[in-house]
Amino acid sequence: MGQYVAPLRDMQFVLHELLNVESELKQLPRYADIDADIINQVLEEGAKFTSKVLFPLNHSGDREGCHLDTASHEVTTPKGFKEAYKQYVEAGWPALSCDPEYGGQGLPLAMNNSFYEMLNSSNQAWTMYTGLSHGAYECLHEHGTPEQKSLYLPKLVSGEWTGTMCLTEAHCGTDLGLLRSKAEPQADGSFKITGSKIFISAGEHDMAANILHLVLARLPDAPVGTKGISLFLVPKFIPQADGTPGARNGITCGAIEEKMGIHGNSTCQMNLDEATGWIIGQPNKGLNAMFVMMNAARLGVGMQSLGLTEVAYQNALVYAKDRIQMRSLSGVKAPDKAADPIIVHPDVRRMLLTGKAYAEGGRAFCSFIALQIDKELHHPDETVRKDAADMVALLTPIIKAFITDNAWIATSEAMQVYGGHGFISEWGMEQYVRDSRINMIYEGTNTIQSLDLLGRKVLIDNGAKLKKFGALVQAFVEENGTDEAMSEFITPLADLGDKVSKLTMEIGMKAFRNQDEVGAAAVPYLRVVGHLVYAYFFARMAKIALAKQASGDNFYKAKLATARFYFARLLPETAMLIRQARSGAANLLDLEVELF
Amino acid sequence: MGQYVAPLRDMQFVLHELLNVESELKQLPRYADIDADIINQVLEEGAKFTSKVLFPLNHSGDREGCHLDTASHEVTTPKGFKEAYKQYVEAGWPALSCDPEYGGQGLPLAMNNSFYEMLNSSNQAWTMYTGLSHGAYECLHEHGTPEQKSLYLPKLVSGEWTGTMCLTEAHCGTDLGLLRSKAEPQADGSFKITGSKIFISAGEHDMAANILHLVLARLPDAPVGTKGISLFLVPKFIPQADGTPGARNGITCGAIEEKMGIHGNSTCQMNLDEATGWIIGQPNKGLNAMFVMMNAARLGVGMQSLGLTEVAYQNALVYAKDRIQMRSLSGVKAPDKAADPIIVHPDVRRMLLTGKAYAEGGRAFCSFIALQIDKELHHPDETVRKDAADMVALLTPIIKAFITDNAWIATSEAMQVYGGHGFISEWGMEQYVRDSRINMIYEGTNTIQSLDLLGRKVLIDNGAKLKKFGALVQAFVEENGTDEAMSEFITPLADLGDKVSKLTMEIGMKAFRNQDEVGAAAVPYLRVVGHLVYAYFFARMAKIALAKQASGDNFYKAKLATARFYFARLLPETAMLIRQARSGAANLLDLEVELF
Repeated sequence: MGQYVAPLRDMQFVLHELLNVESELKQLPRYADIDADIINQVLEEGAKFTSKVLFPLNHSGDREGCHLDTASHEVTTPKGFKEAYKQYVEAGWPALSCDPEYGGQGLPLAMNNSFYEMLNSSNQAWTMYTGLSHGAYECLHEHGTPEQKSLYLPKLVSGEWTGTMCLTEAHCGTDLGLLRSKAEPQADGSFKITGSKIFISAGEHDMAANILHLVLARLPDAPVGTKGISLFLVPKFIPQADGTPGARNGITCGAIEEKMGIHGNSTCQMNLDEATGWIIGQPNKGLNAMFVMMNAARLGVGMQSLGLTEVAYQNALVYAKDRIQMRSLSGVKAPDKAADPIIVHPDVRRMLLTGKAYAEGGRAFCSFIALQIDKELHHPDETVRKDAADMVALLTPIIKAFITDNAWIATSEAMQVYGGHGFISEWGMEQYVRDSRINMIYEGTNTIQSLDLLGRKVLIDNGAKLKKFGALVQAFVEENGTDEAMSEFITPLADLGDKVSKLTMEIGMKAFRNQDEVGAAAVPYLRVVGHLVYAYFFARMAKIALAKQASGDNFYKAKLATARFYFARLLPETAMLIRQARSGAANLLDLEVELF
Repeated sequence: MGQYVAPLRDMQFVLHELLNVESELKQLPRYADIDADIINQVLEEGAKFTSKVLFPLNHSGDREGCHLDTASHEVTTPKGFKEAYKQYVEAGWPALSCDPEYGGQGLPLAMNNSFYEMLNSSNQAWTMYTGLSHGAYECLHEHGTPEQKSLYLPKLVSGEWTGTMCLTEAHCGTDLGLLRSKAEPQADGSFKITGSKIFISAGEHDMAANILHLVLARLPDAPVGTKGISLFLVPKFIPQADGTPGARNGITCGAIEEKMGIHGNSTCQMNLDEATGWIIGQPNKGLNAMFVMMNAARLGVGMQSLGLTEVAYQNALVYAKDRIQMRSLSGVKAPDKAADPIIVHPDVRRMLLTGKAYAEGGRAFCSFIALQIDKELHHPDETVRKDAADMVALLTPIIKAFITDNAWIATSEAMQVYGGHGFISEWGMEQYVRDSRINMIYEGTNTIQSLDLLGRKVLIDNGAKLKKFGALVQAFVEENGTDEAMSEFITPLADLGDKVSKLTMEIGMKAFRNQDEVGAAAVPYLRVVGHLVYAYFFARMAKIALAKQASGDNFYKAKLATARFYFARLLPETAMLIRQARSGAANLLDLEVELF
């Protein structure tokens, strides 16, 4: 049933050698005491919990799924999920990066992020129960009233209660402006909410004493479209004065969806029948408040796919070393065996290295962003906070779409390493492929992410935010431009940087004439920028590896080989993508709808 | 639960306008009487059977799966499968392209092929029961003794009995040289076969009165490796003198695999315990005989993926016209609705057109190959037969790998059109993705196909077979080089043709020094040649469409738009692939195994 070993050395390499988190965090008063030892210790504990408790439940959770009792509307999660959650709560894991004012441990996201990678490598379906709570925590923390915060945040921080986000309705997902759920104001300041929501992850389950639903609905006098949506807090059980769960609220699970993957998570249809709720933030500004949660969730989805990429790669590697089949074309490699281990075959290497490179690139990228969020929230200098916020805004859609696309590729390649056995459930590989597929869809499809990047992050300010990232690339190129050993990385990195600038300008010009040019270019454009980000981080990692070559530590030798593979085999995708992005809207739109 | 409408107009376009099958078939005495009307009538009947009988069983078959009674070793197929098979047999469909000498209808493969596309669009899992029979028919037809043929072929032709191919064992799939099943000669000329086989599609079921297993095993004195494998015919029930099924043979289903897709087909572990079998062909030449079946199966797998591409595209198209979500960026398109149908969005178009182009390109390619096989088998002129055989040998691995890779892409894009609903089982789209995944693995993984193409089809004769295809491209380029209207197709086609020649030569040179260069380049190389094939057919289809523009028939307008999309959006993949293929083996092999 496979294995998972948390890649601690790799995480430490990224945090300490690539990003120097200890010295970066020292600049943030809140984290001035955090040192590398603390980070490493927490991650070591996290590795034990995730690999020993959660990973063994991943495959069984997929086979078993969640079950709804239609009479009581209660949902039973797969065997072991509840007990694992109890351990998770008792160990204080939900509180890791939360605000100490509400019981949190106040540790940086840069660290929490690596823990989330482990959670997702071990069990994405399980992790969604707690991951959505964290999004609800962030939303309430930023937009809740002091009373709401003091009542609800400690419960989310401790993990005693979990959270959900209730946005989608059957007729609207991407286009929330169409939503119909209604909220009637009551004399006591509360609201009665009625409507039907679908695709609510962790919408009902048996793991926590209460569930806090964040629900989008319309007030009676609300304007049409997205400007008339408000956000409400709707607890499954209405808290009593002492904070314990009281009366059952009118929000119930009507059905659990049958789906392609993440079977261990309950994807619920939720019916609200005059459910009692309280408004969060301002009337008609619900989408604003929800975006806090959605941005957190988008980063979270990137982490899900990073986790799947890593664990699928690890298992394929074990199999490729173990399975013997055919002889190497360049001569027998294992004369004592009836055939060579398949890892000797170049194309098996290509499949493995695709996973390895996408995991290592994604890890560097996600950890970088987590550190940027720490700076955005806690750096004393406003300019630094603003720059960090811009970087996070720019790169969030890339985290979401690029990493999830890459995981679809990498998990499928990992499965292919197994040949026919990859298609068989008991080996566990096909589950990673199925689980990874949802990540390209939810929290805004990858097309929506690409429109967000190109339209709302890049073109909207004439590329100002993009230039901030470009400046990092430029500085690195200049700093290393004369280093002969680095030229194999610097030359293509600089070249791609130039091409991204030109491509952005070209699409911007076209978009002046026809906005559909944005939609026609956005998806390949996002992947081009994603590769620029990965090329930058791989070049930086290669530089460290080159400097440490003399140490004789094979870790650096492997790091360098992965960077070389990335530049030789994955970066060339940009040659295709740039052609696609430049090809324009006509080849998509000229054909009349009725002629399809 | 979706829909399937057989694309008859498109099939007729390919058969009659692109390939001129009627006049081509007139040159083959066996098919001299076949005219377009006969072909069209049969396909119309096929469209009714597949869409009305098989398609409605596709989703339910997936949900239900196959069930093994461990006491009796009998397998129950999903509800309705057996009855549909009865109708299929009664209508004479199994006999369509079979030899009249054994009860076949003697119709050309070029026609049967279009019928197989329909079968697979409707229900891949069901079609595998009959598809494997056809492979067994071809193998026995070529290698069976006269007695074997007269005893077994009529049963396969009528569909009364079905066939399987039993190759894989737990420790060997790709590397059949390692197989261990044993065959002991008996005094009466039969053999007692003992061993265990896995991944046997349609290995046991309740649809036919008998199952003919073609089993690879070793004779007692057999040389090691692939040169010591023999092929045996092992019927589930040993035929009696009158040809009816007699005693139960010692070959039984031990388990059905739980797998990612094609749940409607029983993937069996088959145990042979001194099962009685008869040798097919010469001792130790079993792989040779089996290759007849495997080559047929490889073409069949390409057809499976073509079928899935078409049906997934069709459903995504219906959804994209129906589902309203967001307004077009270039202005409201459906003012009477609350939002625009999503087909107005450029990236939804990109996803749809990817499916449409891969379906139309694949259909042209597969029909061309089927016609080549008709010529290979039945043309009076030996040179024509040889040329056709070379073309089939060259292009078979491309049919198998390129079309199955493309279906993985296209079904995933079609699913993405549905957003969150795509991930939900009831819409049926995720099944197409899951079903399509096996096609990249079985009948020789796509890596094996690429090694077959580059090593055994191209480099082995210094590109002689490739040049035969190149000559078709060259002739078309020259014929249309001065046609201004065709230049948008001819220029990139000619350019790619040149690049393929250079790339082939370059890899050939490198391979002299290091055979691993073949393995390092093969997978991207196959896709480059695949695109050359598609570019050639799209250019030819565009030429026809341009000539018919004036007719006012919108069919040709759509055909032209699809060709333009293909050249603008899909062909540019070659820019990536050529870089990957040229990047060499070092980036894959330099890293020592233990440093991964």
